[in-house]
Amino acid sequence: MSASSRIRNPELLQRLMSAEAAAALIPNGAVVGMSGFTGAGYPKAIPTALAHRIRDLNGQGEKFRISIWTGASTAPELDGVLAEVDGIEMRLPFQSDPICRQRINDGRMDYIDIHLSEVSQYAWAGFLGKLDLAVIEVAGILEDGRLIPSSAVGNNKTWIEQADKIIIEVNDKQNAKLEGMHDIYYGTALPPNRKPIMITSPADRIGEQYLHCPLDKVIGVVETSAADRNSPFTPPDEVSKRIAGHILEFFEREIAAGRLPKELLPIQSGVGNIPNAVLEGLDAGPYKNLTAFTEVIQDGMLKMLKSGTLGVASATAFSLSPVAIEELNNNIDFYRERIILRQQDISNHPELARRLGVIAMNGLIEADIYGNVNSTHIMGSRMMNGIGGSGDFARNGYLSIFVTPSTAKNGSISAIVPMVSHVDHTEHDVKIIVTEQGLADLRGLSPRQRAHKIIQNCAHPAYRERLMDYFERACASGRGMHTPHLLGEALSWHQRYEENGQM
Amino acid sequence: MSASSRIRNPELLQRLMSAEAAAALIPNGAVVGMSGFTGAGYPKAIPTALAHRIRDLNGQGEKFRISIWTGASTAPELDGVLAEVDGIEMRLPFQSDPICRQRINDGRMDYIDIHLSEVSQYAWAGFLGKLDLAVIEVAGILEDGRLIPSSAVGNNKTWIEQADKIIIEVNDKQNAKLEGMHDIYYGTALPPNRKPIMITSPADRIGEQYLHCPLDKVIGVVETSAADRNSPFTPPDEVSKRIAGHILEFFEREIAAGRLPKELLPIQSGVGNIPNAVLEGLDAGPYKNLTAFTEVIQDGMLKMLKSGTLGVASATAFSLSPVAIEELNNNIDFYRERIILRQQDISNHPELARRLGVIAMNGLIEADIYGNVNSTHIMGSRMMNGIGGSGDFARNGYLSIFVTPSTAKNGSISAIVPMVSHVDHTEHDVKIIVTEQGLADLRGLSPRQRAHKIIQNCAHPAYRERLMDYFERACASGRGMHTPHLLGEALSWHQRYEENGQM
Repeated sequence: MSASSRIRNPELLQRLMSAEAAAALIPNGAVVGMSGFTGAGYPKAIPTALAHRIRDLNGQGEKFRISIWTGASTAPELDGVLAEVDGIEMRLPFQSDPICRQRINDGRMDYIDIHLSEVSQYAWAGFLGKLDLAVIEVAGILEDGRLIPSSAVGNNKTWIEQADKIIIEVNDKQNAKLEGMHDIYYGTALPPNRKPIMITSPADRIGEQYLHCPLDKVIGVVETSAADRNSPFTPPDEVSKRIAGHILEFFEREIAAGRLPKELLPIQSGVGNIPNAVLEGLDAGPYKNLTAFTEVIQDGMLKMLKSGTLGVASATAFSLSPVAIEELNNNIDFYRERIILRQQDISNHPELARRLGVIAMNGLIEADIYGNVNSTHIMGSRMMNGIGGSGDFARNGYLSIFVTPSTAKNGSISAIVPMVSHVDHTEHDVKIIVTEQGLADLRGLSPRQRAHKIIQNCAHPAYRERLMDYFERACASGRGMHTPHLLGEALSWHQRYEENGQM
Repeated sequence: MSASSRIRNPELLQRLMSAEAAAALIPNGAVVGMSGFTGAGYPKAIPTALAHRIRDLNGQGEKFRISIWTGASTAPELDGVLAEVDGIEMRLPFQSDPICRQRINDGRMDYIDIHLSEVSQYAWAGFLGKLDLAVIEVAGILEDGRLIPSSAVGNNKTWIEQADKIIIEVNDKQNAKLEGMHDIYYGTALPPNRKPIMITSPADRIGEQYLHCPLDKVIGVVETSAADRNSPFTPPDEVSKRIAGHILEFFEREIAAGRLPKELLPIQSGVGNIPNAVLEGLDAGPYKNLTAFTEVIQDGMLKMLKSGTLGVASATAFSLSPVAIEELNNNIDFYRERIILRQQDISNHPELARRLGVIAMNGLIEADIYGNVNSTHIMGSRMMNGIGGSGDFARNGYLSIFVTPSTAKNGSISAIVPMVSHVDHTEHDVKIIVTEQGLADLRGLSPRQRAHKIIQNCAHPAYRERLMDYFERACASGRGMHTPHLLGEALSWHQRYEENGQM
């Protein structure tokens, strides 16, 4: 089946062109909104064609750079190829590409790390300047020109509305039967015209199945046939399983104490090994008919839907292994009844995170003894990926749980430090910290009480005494007992690591 | 007029007692939810009577301490007297009392600094443990036992609902005609049973005028006749006026650029000299029919309501000078049409801050060159007041503006530092920083771009070169160019201040 059978609008069919021809329509200096969220639904062909064009221009001594806005992270075929030819002037709101990261930390690319729920309101409000172009992957085009969204919705609605011009990639490797899984809400507005968002359960649908698209803005349509960036699923390791175990025990205690209903509350789960272990643990437990209100649907959630542990999952994108994609494609009718893909300003909306009472589970790079969390920076200066949606959920959800192995780099880095080198989640927002060592429940504790709990329950034994020693000397310093610190030593663990390779 | 004419319920009239008798009903170790928000509506007599009792017990070698939850800050007659006799074991969610502060920083009192919107949900969810007693000031009691709220609503609804026992103070110095100004919303719930909060404008009323009160829980009623803690109004100084001037210019530019409507958006304003200067500036400008969706109504807002600059103000409490109180009392019918006092979980609700698109203006203690803001800690360890509601509004509002003079302590402290010694508002949440030197608009800027703007526009000239020198050496260090820092120097300005009294 040729992709063109997916382009049912005759007007747009006439604008079919090669990826190279489409890439040629992107001018130097353009600000381009691209589709893509967590390696799903990003344009597969045009960024690579553009990178080739840039490489040629660079060879002729010409500079060519664009700014790229997306939903979240994309893939080597977008961030990777364009960063490699130094083709990205500015990037927002999230990335996880190794080449991109290198360019950002070398100071060759500007990067703005934004709460994912806020990106589209920033764009609408004009805070980010003008959006010249949108490059959007879709699963198909209806006869009337409306678009069948792909495996991620992200900010596509906003890019299509805000951009002067639109280029569409129609990817026939995306299951045509994704049709109907999406819920695109056209009731958003800028203040003072905003209305309540009438979702009271993750299962609620309030929008339409398709993206509207003003046909006169479409300057090109490109056919592609390529899979999303899919990483093989790695079974949880021992550390992840232990972290998951602590969380599962915590849920049981909370249910027993009447602080959580037995169906829990809607789960938001970051991507990765530890969250997958938690999901596997839930799936093996007594739970039925849980819900998810999250950014990304990963392998674990698909399994939970299949088993009935999870009744419904609301998200903005998939992030699946090849095996899980096959499962999804083979049973797409089953999953379409149980999965809703929304735009990210809805999937991550503070109003909804608060109302639904989301249980937010996210990773961290380091936490300090008082419960401040660094999710983004290595040693205070180097960007890892970005804050993503963690701030939307941690600030406004019912419970914020942050997870990490207690050490990194074979034990040379402690995830628990005297003072974090960058703060993404403040002490006010962090309720639970979990490592394989244990769980620290920080609710209702003052900073010094938190320090005892975090050091005793979460720090690796190899670092525990030294953390307690820092804390006790800080308390004895006379500098102030609310959040005792020794300013000359607070960041010394990071300095020591940079100097000696060992904290 | 005796206060008892304000106690129209016969059953409660029978429980009338002295403040001393009521204080005797509070047991050692009790957790007590008290009324009070920004020096308004706190109990006037019982805390002092309790402090006397504690002093006597201490004299006999007996310890007596309670934990106190409030709306926000109170007054010397509550926090001050009880802290002085070491009668407070734990305090939340906000304080601004000098004796309290001293005890916290001496390590003799635990303090939990919580986003004000979250306190009542924490209490409801059981995150803070059991609430034994509520001590609530009201303006009167209806025949059927419902309560006429006082000059602050705060968390009173929640304390009354959650506490095992209730003691009421009926204060006849509170204007009886406050009746009808309040909007107490009984539609809140814990997830998964929460519904949309149907407010789409600061003027909307969705609740009732009175607090429900289960009469069987009331163990005592006390009459009082005392004014709220009212500080005289100090006219804005030159620095405040210059800060206000930058903000007013900014609003004009934003309106001209179409990024703000000409009626602006609902204003949230912290308390103090600078916010009052901004309000005065707005009042002198071309604005009509603005709205406020804020925590506290201060003198400036009353003037704006009078002049018509402000059409309506929604808040949870007053914080007025004696002159302004007289104005309020003399024209209470006029103001009752234009002021709505709500419980603080509604006045500060993330859902509403986001929907209404609040313009959040709050003070700061220090900001760093990358836009992280410290609102709470002196030199990283000593608590000043607390985060209050600033996090509710800054994270979820439309614009977050943080204001400060560029120096403190006669120039020996720079409000702009290489790295803040504590983070309450992360780089992701801070859009605008303003000092008397100028305004830094950080929207759409990467960290290094922000550094240039903050140093050039906001830092005091006496510190500007040294900040730029730090930044340039950090950039040259090779440690990472996303957020360049020199870890060994990042907190050295604070150390220098502590060692030499000069940054």
